[in-house]
Amino acid sequence: MRALSGRGGIVNVRDLGERRIIARVRRAFGGKAPGTVLGTGDDAAVVRSPRSLLLTTDVLVEDYDFRSRLMPPRLLGRKSLNVNLSDVAAMGGRPLHAVVGLALPGGTDVAWLWEFLAGFREAAGEAGVTLVGGDFSGAGRIMISVTVTGAAPSFVPRSGARPGDRIFVSGTLGDAAEGRRLLERGLRPGSDSDAGRLLKAFLDPAPRLALGAALARGKLAAAMIDVSDGLSVDLAHICEESGAGAEIELNRIPISKALRRFRKRPLAAALDGGEDFELLFTVRLRNVPRVRRLSPRFALTEIGRITAGRRLIAVDATGRKKPLKIRGWEHFRKA
Amino acid sequence: MRALSGRGGIVNVRDLGERRIIARVRRAFGGKAPGTVLGTGDDAAVVRSPRSLLLTTDVLVEDYDFRSRLMPPRLLGRKSLNVNLSDVAAMGGRPLHAVVGLALPGGTDVAWLWEFLAGFREAAGEAGVTLVGGDFSGAGRIMISVTVTGAAPSFVPRSGARPGDRIFVSGTLGDAAEGRRLLERGLRPGSDSDAGRLLKAFLDPAPRLALGAALARGKLAAAMIDVSDGLSVDLAHICEESGAGAEIELNRIPISKALRRFRKRPLAAALDGGEDFELLFTVRLRNVPRVRRLSPRFALTEIGRITAGRRLIAVDATGRKKPLKIRGWEHFRKA
Repeated sequence: MRALSGRGGIVNVRDLGERRIIARVRRAFGGKAPGTVLGTGDDAAVVRSPRSLLLTTDVLVEDYDFRSRLMPPRLLGRKSLNVNLSDVAAMGGRPLHAVVGLALPGGTDVAWLWEFLAGFREAAGEAGVTLVGGDFSGAGRIMISVTVTGAAPSFVPRSGARPGDRIFVSGTLGDAAEGRRLLERGLRPGSDSDAGRLLKAFLDPAPRLALGAALARGKLAAAMIDVSDGLSVDLAHICEESGAGAEIELNRIPISKALRRFRKRPLAAALDGGEDFELLFTVRLRNVPRVRRLSPRFALTEIGRITAGRRLIAVDATGRKKPLKIRGWEHFRKA
Repeated sequence: MRALSGRGGIVNVRDLGERRIIARVRRAFGGKAPGTVLGTGDDAAVVRSPRSLLLTTDVLVEDYDFRSRLMPPRLLGRKSLNVNLSDVAAMGGRPLHAVVGLALPGGTDVAWLWEFLAGFREAAGEAGVTLVGGDFSGAGRIMISVTVTGAAPSFVPRSGARPGDRIFVSGTLGDAAEGRRLLERGLRPGSDSDAGRLLKAFLDPAPRLALGAALARGKLAAAMIDVSDGLSVDLAHICEESGAGAEIELNRIPISKALRRFRKRPLAAALDGGEDFELLFTVRLRNVPRVRRLSPRFALTEIGRITAGRRLIAVDATGRKKPLKIRGWEHFRKA
């Protein structure tokens, strides 16, 4: 960083140039990590792979998937990896390697880039993931594309649900959506602990890797997905892939005290908010007791059951049933 | 497509929606391909992997890496996969799987997307690659991110060059740069066969997979890279990673008749043009005869040798030596 500040004031990525940026990234991410034969700096990375490999990719685009104004670069770096790790968690896998594509406006302050990479590295370290390659380009708006590999000796698909399965979800739902709303209204982390919890749910979600792995290892989950688009949409994905329906008991949906404090009707946020990155999974009846034993450790809640047919039903507190409305994130619209 | 045209006129991706687009992609790319346990439609793909796996990623951004006006979507689809396959070729690998991240303006005509995907599928079919997953997002400008896996029982790094190695390159250099210039000047494929050759070099480059694999299999190449940024830059990469220098004989650099016809001084395009996607590699002296035997099949040319020290030298027709100027693509600048 000395060479940079020596040039006086803010340096942007165009002035620094791709070559020096890559050199810096290579230094920051160190040489060869376990499982890596060749790291960044060749045409392709060469990694040791398990026989059964997970592959998942996510694209984050400024103004569509995030707002730079609301998203500190370090947290954006963490989140851009963690949303991919959440996909690995939803398969019951263990993440191994990451490659990152980064398209940046030439005028991006290099300090932004170092903060982004520091956050990425931090999240990678927490999950035992090795960054093995990447690509840079210019762009009018920031675009981040991350691809992650993982190991999954026994994985959990979306398509494994059967009528009679019980439906569980981890954590609480709707916090991220409310956190986002509070951010847009100008709240910042620090002052209020309830608000802070909601802001963190949006800014710095944690992938449920330990839970996903425990469920896969014990063959406890029959179908699983992470709640990225919203409970209603993601439950619909499980039902569609499994050729089944579902009944959800609305008063069982886990809602945090913090969300209740800020929202008079928190259910809409919990059903359709998205970006919670909790795990939604179905469990055969015989495995329900074993899953309940995991509840204290992973904050699990049983919220309904899989049914025959293809309908998604919401059951309210009085026992009245109505169709569950599928509302969720549409990625071609602006954030 | 009937359902679409039934709505009357152009339909864009925002109107069609992510859900229906993904359904269409899944139909187009078929169900489970060899080597795939789970394809698109789950949180992550599960693939059968070799023990030693290649991973490479490339990002293409509209107005930086390509111009929509000059690039028909079918060829963009082909090229966005093929530039990654070129990286696999440069390792001497065999490509296996691809995931694609696609960020599109909401107003993008769906016909553009189908053409792009048709081109992608075509190139995947030619190389035996399976598309196993992807992600969509909105964006102000088109952004494409592709990650490819590959098998490389014995791979060729950039860092393997030693003083005394001979330097070879495949095909001819500078054609893509000139093709791009001609496109910008308004020429289109069809009329003139020389111009057509140059335009094709830019619009539809072929990854040198068979050559890369042959060189790796026979342990004939000591160091290898694909010429994506330009001969001078990519040779500098090999030398830097290998801790060596190089001497290039300028009058040996392979230049096509077509390029000579359109450029009085074709050498600059050949040295610094980029996007040729030919293979540049070094060969131990004892292996040179075996590589020469591959020449007729792969159009190989010996252009110089690796030296001790770190200098890059250009030798002209009269034997005069001067430093080789390193000029090439800077990705944070607009195309």
